Amino acid sequence: MTGVTSSKNFRLAVVQLQVTSVKADNLSRARRLVQQAAGQGSKVVLLPECFNSPYGTSFFSDYAEKIPGESTQMLSEAAKESQVYLVGGSIPEEDGGKLYNTCAVFGPGGEMILKHRKIHLFDINVPGKICFQESETLSPGNSLSTFDTPFCKVGVGICYDMRFAELAQVYSREGCQLLVYPGAFNMTTGPAHWELLQRGRAVDNQVYVATASPARDEAASYVAWGHSTVVNPWGEVISKAGAEETVIYADIDLQYLSDIRRQIPITAQRRDDLYSVTSVQEASG
Amino acid sequence: MTGVTSSKNFRLAVVQLQVTSVKADNLSRARRLVQQAAGQGSKVVLLPECFNSPYGTSFFSDYAEKIPGESTQMLSEAAKESQVYLVGGSIPEEDGGKLYNTCAVFGPGGEMILKHRKIHLFDINVPGKICFQESETLSPGNSLSTFDTPFCKVGVGICYDMRFAELAQVYSREGCQLLVYPGAFNMTTGPAHWELLQRGRAVDNQVYVATASPARDEAASYVAWGHSTVVNPWGEVISKAGAEETVIYADIDLQYLSDIRRQIPITAQRRDDLYSVTSVQEASG
Repeated sequence: MTGVTSSKNFRLAVVQLQVTSVKADNLSRARRLVQQAAGQGSKVVLLPECFNSPYGTSFFSDYAEKIPGESTQMLSEAAKESQVYLVGGSIPEEDGGKLYNTCAVFGPGGEMILKHRKIHLFDINVPGKICFQESETLSPGNSLSTFDTPFCKVGVGICYDMRFAELAQVYSREGCQLLVYPGAFNMTTGPAHWELLQRGRAVDNQVYVATASPARDEAASYVAWGHSTVVNPWGEVISKAGAEETVIYADIDLQYLSDIRRQIPITAQRRDDLYSVTSVQEASG
Repeated sequence: MTGVTSSKNFRLAVVQLQVTSVKADNLSRARRLVQQAAGQGSKVVLLPECFNSPYGTSFFSDYAEKIPGESTQMLSEAAKESQVYLVGGSIPEEDGGKLYNTCAVFGPGGEMILKHRKIHLFDINVPGKICFQESETLSPGNSLSTFDTPFCKVGVGICYDMRFAELAQVYSREGCQLLVYPGAFNMTTGPAHWELLQRGRAVDNQVYVATASPARDEAASYVAWGHSTVVNPWGEVISKAGAEETVIYADIDLQYLSDIRRQIPITAQRRDDLYSVTSVQEASG
């Protein structure tokens, strides 16, 4: 099979975009970095949470769009021109008078193949450190979200969704081998939990996990931690950004994933007679 | 309330015992270290997996005992004389012609309050690194296992049980605020996963997690990683042993645990309408 690359291995790129208050700039820079990632052989490209808008409840309604709309039109074109699966981070979405934090995914033909609305809204209050209440302005999605590629099935969550182990467990039981989380942890939860959660999801489910953060902007009202990361099924960080705008790459090796699952066969060893993790329903959302 | 210590806080001790092939020595040293831990104000003391026997399928039948038997008699007396809750690591247990890897827990009155048989047998094969098949000689338990103290409810797993996130999830949903795992990771899985798994269980469930390993014996057929650890509900390591025999301590602060759960309220934010983690049944085992 010399010269033929296995269809089970592929390059993933994560774009750690510097998000500004100028939407048009965010869109054009994101598009250029997707092109750059594709030029490096990437087949799946991941953008950060809230990539077209500053992150903050005061910004969501101003930057919100219908889907389809300006930002997702760019994503569709970028996916098609670069021939990649493009996980479009997230944007504030307006629908029926409600706002959502929504990830749209596009196939290499430019077609939208998935829309994930953040299920778990980010409502936390660590006194003196970070208080944020997405639910002041956003509504939650009500669906789990996976999509298929020729390489593997992919599960999608947005940022705070990553704190809920159940989501990753259901995704991996449904056959996902890669979980992607556009996210924007902050300067408190970032150093404490960003990498730990990813490594935990990876080792517990023996999957690849990738996160995409905006680059850090110290002048922003919400300062993102950055450090977009890719973790392998052994729980090792295989690619990691710093705080600044960059594109990071990881070669996803599904044979390696299979090897890990054979060596430590927790999937087969689970005691389904004693406990169960299940998807309860999937309403539209 | 000056001078009155809250009943919701207590000191936990983890005994990282140097296990040898001489059972009587293991028992006497364990007893002495429990006394030492109690002398430091510990109310709950944790011993390592297989604390009365070298760890290995060739040893289990030789060192196996009925329960009650010599080793658990010592545990009962040690708990009573030191007035502690004693999580007796584990011993090879013989019952009805079968062998189990069993943790017996004793109250400060010397009464046995729990018997947990390892649910998930350690059958792994990482080529060139570690191959072990507990199921060659052991049978699995079939029950989830928690016990009550005046401080909090405690969930018990043994070593490989820790790899299964579901067990910790069920325990925490049942109200456990401390999870204890006597365990003996090795020189491959230890550096890779021992701390990661504990920190993951802690942050995902917002509980304290404690592990007790045998001290490292480089001459043993199975070389334990050591590094007994206590992790807090924020996912931080608050106490950690090296490789040698020692007792480590951690002050368990249940008010801190409540604070964490209020600050990042994932327990209340779980989407029970979308997914579910449940205990299926509890058969005798």
